[in-house]
Amino acid sequence: MPLPSPLLALAFALLAAAPPMPSPRDPAGYVRPFVGTKGEGNTYPGAQVPFGMVALSPDTDKKEYGTASGYEYSDPSILGFSMLHLSGTGIPDLGDILFQPTVGETCLTPGTKDFKEKGYQSRFRHDQESASPGYYSVMLDDYGVKAELTSTHRAGMLRFTYPASKESHVVLDLAHVLLHKVIWSRVRAIDAQTLQGMHLVKGWAKDRSVYFAARFSKPFKELRIFNDKKEAKYDSFKNYRFLSNAQASGADVQAVADYTTTAGEQILVKVGISPISEEAALRNLDAEMPDWGFENYVANARNVWNTELSRFEVEGTDAQKATFYTGAYHAFMAPNLYTDVDGRTRGQDHQTKTPKGYQTYTTFSLWDTYRATHPLFNLVQPDRNRDMVRSLLAAFEESADHLLPIWNFWSNETWCMPGYHAIPVIVDAWAKGMTGIDWEKALQACVASASHPTFDALADFERLGFVPFDVENESVSKTLEYAYDDACIARLARGLRKTAIAERFEKRAMAYRNLFDASLKLMRPKNSQGQWQTPFNPQEFKHLGPFTEGTTWQYTWSVAHDVPGLIRLMGGREAFTKQLDQVFKVQEKRQDAGVDDILGRIGEYWHGNEPSHHVTYLYAVAGQPWKTQALVRNLIDTQYGDQPDSLCGNDDCGQMSAWYLFSAMGFYPLCPGDDRYVLGSPALPKVSMKVGNGKSFTVRAENFSPANVYVQKTTLNGQPWTKAWLPHAALVAGGELVFTLGPKPNKAWASRHEAALGALHEKRP
Amino acid sequence: MPLPSPLLALAFALLAAAPPMPSPRDPAGYVRPFVGTKGEGNTYPGAQVPFGMVALSPDTDKKEYGTASGYEYSDPSILGFSMLHLSGTGIPDLGDILFQPTVGETCLTPGTKDFKEKGYQSRFRHDQESASPGYYSVMLDDYGVKAELTSTHRAGMLRFTYPASKESHVVLDLAHVLLHKVIWSRVRAIDAQTLQGMHLVKGWAKDRSVYFAARFSKPFKELRIFNDKKEAKYDSFKNYRFLSNAQASGADVQAVADYTTTAGEQILVKVGISPISEEAALRNLDAEMPDWGFENYVANARNVWNTELSRFEVEGTDAQKATFYTGAYHAFMAPNLYTDVDGRTRGQDHQTKTPKGYQTYTTFSLWDTYRATHPLFNLVQPDRNRDMVRSLLAAFEESADHLLPIWNFWSNETWCMPGYHAIPVIVDAWAKGMTGIDWEKALQACVASASHPTFDALADFERLGFVPFDVENESVSKTLEYAYDDACIARLARGLRKTAIAERFEKRAMAYRNLFDASLKLMRPKNSQGQWQTPFNPQEFKHLGPFTEGTTWQYTWSVAHDVPGLIRLMGGREAFTKQLDQVFKVQEKRQDAGVDDILGRIGEYWHGNEPSHHVTYLYAVAGQPWKTQALVRNLIDTQYGDQPDSLCGNDDCGQMSAWYLFSAMGFYPLCPGDDRYVLGSPALPKVSMKVGNGKSFTVRAENFSPANVYVQKTTLNGQPWTKAWLPHAALVAGGELVFTLGPKPNKAWASRHEAALGALHEKRP
Repeated sequence: MPLPSPLLALAFALLAAAPPMPSPRDPAGYVRPFVGTKGEGNTYPGAQVPFGMVALSPDTDKKEYGTASGYEYSDPSILGFSMLHLSGTGIPDLGDILFQPTVGETCLTPGTKDFKEKGYQSRFRHDQESASPGYYSVMLDDYGVKAELTSTHRAGMLRFTYPASKESHVVLDLAHVLLHKVIWSRVRAIDAQTLQGMHLVKGWAKDRSVYFAARFSKPFKELRIFNDKKEAKYDSFKNYRFLSNAQASGADVQAVADYTTTAGEQILVKVGISPISEEAALRNLDAEMPDWGFENYVANARNVWNTELSRFEVEGTDAQKATFYTGAYHAFMAPNLYTDVDGRTRGQDHQTKTPKGYQTYTTFSLWDTYRATHPLFNLVQPDRNRDMVRSLLAAFEESADHLLPIWNFWSNETWCMPGYHAIPVIVDAWAKGMTGIDWEKALQACVASASHPTFDALADFERLGFVPFDVENESVSKTLEYAYDDACIARLARGLRKTAIAERFEKRAMAYRNLFDASLKLMRPKNSQGQWQTPFNPQEFKHLGPFTEGTTWQYTWSVAHDVPGLIRLMGGREAFTKQLDQVFKVQEKRQDAGVDDILGRIGEYWHGNEPSHHVTYLYAVAGQPWKTQALVRNLIDTQYGDQPDSLCGNDDCGQMSAWYLFSAMGFYPLCPGDDRYVLGSPALPKVSMKVGNGKSFTVRAENFSPANVYVQKTTLNGQPWTKAWLPHAALVAGGELVFTLGPKPNKAWASRHEAALGALHEKRP
Repeated sequence: MPLPSPLLALAFALLAAAPPMPSPRDPAGYVRPFVGTKGEGNTYPGAQVPFGMVALSPDTDKKEYGTASGYEYSDPSILGFSMLHLSGTGIPDLGDILFQPTVGETCLTPGTKDFKEKGYQSRFRHDQESASPGYYSVMLDDYGVKAELTSTHRAGMLRFTYPASKESHVVLDLAHVLLHKVIWSRVRAIDAQTLQGMHLVKGWAKDRSVYFAARFSKPFKELRIFNDKKEAKYDSFKNYRFLSNAQASGADVQAVADYTTTAGEQILVKVGISPISEEAALRNLDAEMPDWGFENYVANARNVWNTELSRFEVEGTDAQKATFYTGAYHAFMAPNLYTDVDGRTRGQDHQTKTPKGYQTYTTFSLWDTYRATHPLFNLVQPDRNRDMVRSLLAAFEESADHLLPIWNFWSNETWCMPGYHAIPVIVDAWAKGMTGIDWEKALQACVASASHPTFDALADFERLGFVPFDVENESVSKTLEYAYDDACIARLARGLRKTAIAERFEKRAMAYRNLFDASLKLMRPKNSQGQWQTPFNPQEFKHLGPFTEGTTWQYTWSVAHDVPGLIRLMGGREAFTKQLDQVFKVQEKRQDAGVDDILGRIGEYWHGNEPSHHVTYLYAVAGQPWKTQALVRNLIDTQYGDQPDSLCGNDDCGQMSAWYLFSAMGFYPLCPGDDRYVLGSPALPKVSMKVGNGKSFTVRAENFSPANVYVQKTTLNGQPWTKAWLPHAALVAGGELVFTLGPKPNKAWASRHEAALGALHEKRP
């Protein structure tokens, strides 16, 4: 293979555009797309517009379970660039429709990470790699090819700068997908520079088809299509029948576009994606990328990002801004647009739909994102969140099981994670005044989902008041999560004056009490005879045991819908906070460390996973807000940052980042479905947030410094504010919340009155 | 398994409706759907309306290459009833979406023919089986279930009459397909009595998806879905995540509907099919089968058949009528409707299309059907044939290879058989006055197809004037078939005054001369240096040798487009007919018998395969029409009939039957693309044929008897007719052709003048 000389490679590297620098009107300049790409974050550095269907990004791996986004910063090579990616999930999938520019001998497989098996992959160096919102570039050292990526909503453009070679190629590998299996694929040339095709993947999503159309800027010198590694080419004597060299269908199909290139010659490929058909993919492509103006698409993508990121205006150090805007960037990646330019989408029933009046979104990591991501959207993405709620309700209508989505993407339900957390997303939107939804129908969908006769252990749950560990795995987690979601149903039903429904689900919402062992002050599994699990080791983590990805120490606190009730069960505020203190005590090194991609641990508090996310805020509800303040500021300082390894757990479609955004602003949606936010301690001198209708809500931190983590007092619009919480109405009205910070707790602030936040049956003060 | 008592089975059998009897207005009553189901005919006995998409028929086999229609009369058991079938092809495919009623233990595979492996198949007896156009019934002895079938264009209905049982089932096996492999399938319950789904088959058609929707007349007692033979059912401890029991996707999926039935209880299943989607299949179903009136659909199907069959009015014995109407029945099964009720179809490019102003047809066995089937359609199905021509031209537009169809079905090209015989279908339609086609565009499609740079050996053919055997298989067959098709292009080009095109293809049409070895008076392979193949054994048959499914003895006569030219090459009429006589001499038993599903052999004349079909008529062109007369009558008497084994070769989508229909009427389209028919000897006392515009053309045979095979004289509309051929115009004008027959040849009749029929450059007398 004619590798370019190191000098040539250097010359190309020098030609690379300098990374764009941030400016006041260019918050995108602060974004560090590599944050979360090293270790557990599972983000990707490629090119995507906010909530875009297409996330065109390099894949460095397709085999590791831990590399769910396709890209791991520590990997030595890039396999190619594929069109779709999951942002921050714990399970790999997508990575569809991979393109890789190569020079020299044609390879049809990526090769192995140890380079023992040669392939189309190429080594790369991070100093020859850059990424910014909507743009990614890297030098592929093995080929001397510079690859640059940008994207629109439904299309991506790849620009490859080649060395001089008579053997330059673009390899399209339809057999590539992350971790899982391509069952079938199809490719066809519709002219001398356009390919169309699809593949069907049996993956985490069990039955997923992706359609594409790819236009090349230069007519193929030759196009070679391979099926089961054999070139599709008619040979009179080998083949009985004519064999088309313009198309192929099979489980292992590659197409290789061959070129002769001059030094520095650029060949561009633009690729449209659709869930409907090849034809629809071409329509998406031609609508969104009518020409070859790569730089313009880069600029457009950055403009779109700036529009979205400008919903926040941040003061602070560059590092603080980088962390904040990167958080916003990650929070705005998913759910993903799932509607073609002609308004069509594919339903959960796999049929083509044309939703009226909204765009469909997909990829709902609801167990994660109901907590802070969707509440964030209710503030700064209300229109998109409305379309997301509509998407959830449409999916219910299309569901063969008559269930709201649990964890769905690309027309498939994965049933991943316990509970039915579309409900808090829906009810939080209702609680925060979303219009344009038929709430009666929404309530019916919630009730139907929570009443499913065979889903998980719902029947046992309703009959016994808890999920018994002897008939169902993850029994305590399920009990607590059902109870939470049921509290949301009850709130909505009360709001719609459906008393019978409200009473039924208020009762179910109290199910957490049935698993609270007062002697331990911990949740504890019970069997179907109502007996406690014995012996019971509170620190034991067991896969498919009673606790999902954790132990009772994380799960005991999963009663955000009735914190006062939990406080009473614990024996009052003092006992409650004392037990809570135990969570944050760093114990001896645990034998049984739990799930290995959950880091960010402070004792039994595991910031790298969602069940812990609201726990620090419980102190504020229980009258010790200074502990919330210290812990939150500590987490922000230690578990976030602007480096590739700055995320301590899966970003989970933005939930890790949304926790940060709220917490950095000084408040957090402890209990989605309730319209209040509990106050913490802001991590920036000043943040303004656009909350719609031209209004902004500003949080200012007086005396802000790393050491001044404690709130001394707060004012709202100049008036003293003494509560531990803030109502949604205050935020959307616009205004200014000023925290005055100091190095020592002001234990008198917001700690005296009973903070009933989260209580299902409460009278607000 | 609780098998019903023999008495019960007998009782059910007695309940079966008596087979309908024919009446003058009920030609369907003469049809014997079992003709061709035993041995090589490869027809099926199930329920289909003329040219219907759905052909709902029992499958007795899914493994034998020779059982291409799924049904072999000699088989002992029925595996089930599937929705789509190929009529008379040599290669199996389809057999999609199989339903089988069973009683007792649930089986998910059909079992083996020797019954060593138990399965859902059931034994049956032909005396408990009946079939008529649009209706089929059989008693499934293993279950005591009577199964009855009927169909509309896009849907089928199955009526199952069960014994009393608590374990009655309907098994839907999506893994079933004839011979080939189901790559993927999907099923989902959309309510308690409706299933939807699809499967993707890698078969003879390499990438074929079939969508279905099935409504059951009775809500399921239980519905069980199996994936990889495991029931899709959530088990808390076995399954990590919830598993839907209402849907599944995979390569091996079955759904079993369970019922408790009373004795004689009928459960009906109606099934819509679509090439587009499950939703479209449901729309097709609900549009065509809105209710459960099984008897009405049977009556409707028979009415539709009677309308089509009444295009012929036949006088003769019941056996003659049975043979004739069964021939018409088989000629009207394919091509198949391939348009949904909403007007959509799937193109050759796999994209959804909405053709304007016509219905798309699929399943074009063109190498066979260009000969007599499409010429028959030009007479009695002109509107359908117009839509077929439009379908062929649309497929050209959609073709990645820019080729007219060769042998396509269900959006896939199989490239089966040499030549490009869409062209004679198109040109024959033009020659016979078809309107509504853009003939300039049609010519362009023909020229493009015949000029493809890599298809088979077209480039060599044009360069050398023949296909050389050292670079391409089937070289002589390809040369002759290209030449024939090119003659058609030349005719169309002359007609459209495209002189340059006409001259180019007139030259190519003469290519047959280049392979004619005057010393042997046979076609002989040449290599690319222009040397004859040496040694050359004219009787040798070799798979992928120079001759397709035959030897030079069959192929030498494949010059229907220039019979006078071939006569001249042979050395004149006498030498020509002498050599032709050699064909029909029964030789010693051949060592090398050729393709094993070709029977109907008279020496080297193999009626069971298409290259021979025009050969008997060559005598009439060469001045010895009495030999044509005797041979044709002999073939009709010996190679056709009303029994299951009455077809001596694959019916090939109606070509074997269309040969019969023409020949029985006393004329045959020797050279499709030319507007004349060569006269033979009618095999019935009288046939009238509706030729459109309210006109009929009647053929009457005076002195008709089995022995009177020789034409003594003919009159057309009362005037003497002395030519060996009849123009198309005479047929479509309506009128009466009277043959006077006798036991001895009248060698003076139609033998004197040079019958130039077939000549490319001729002046008509």
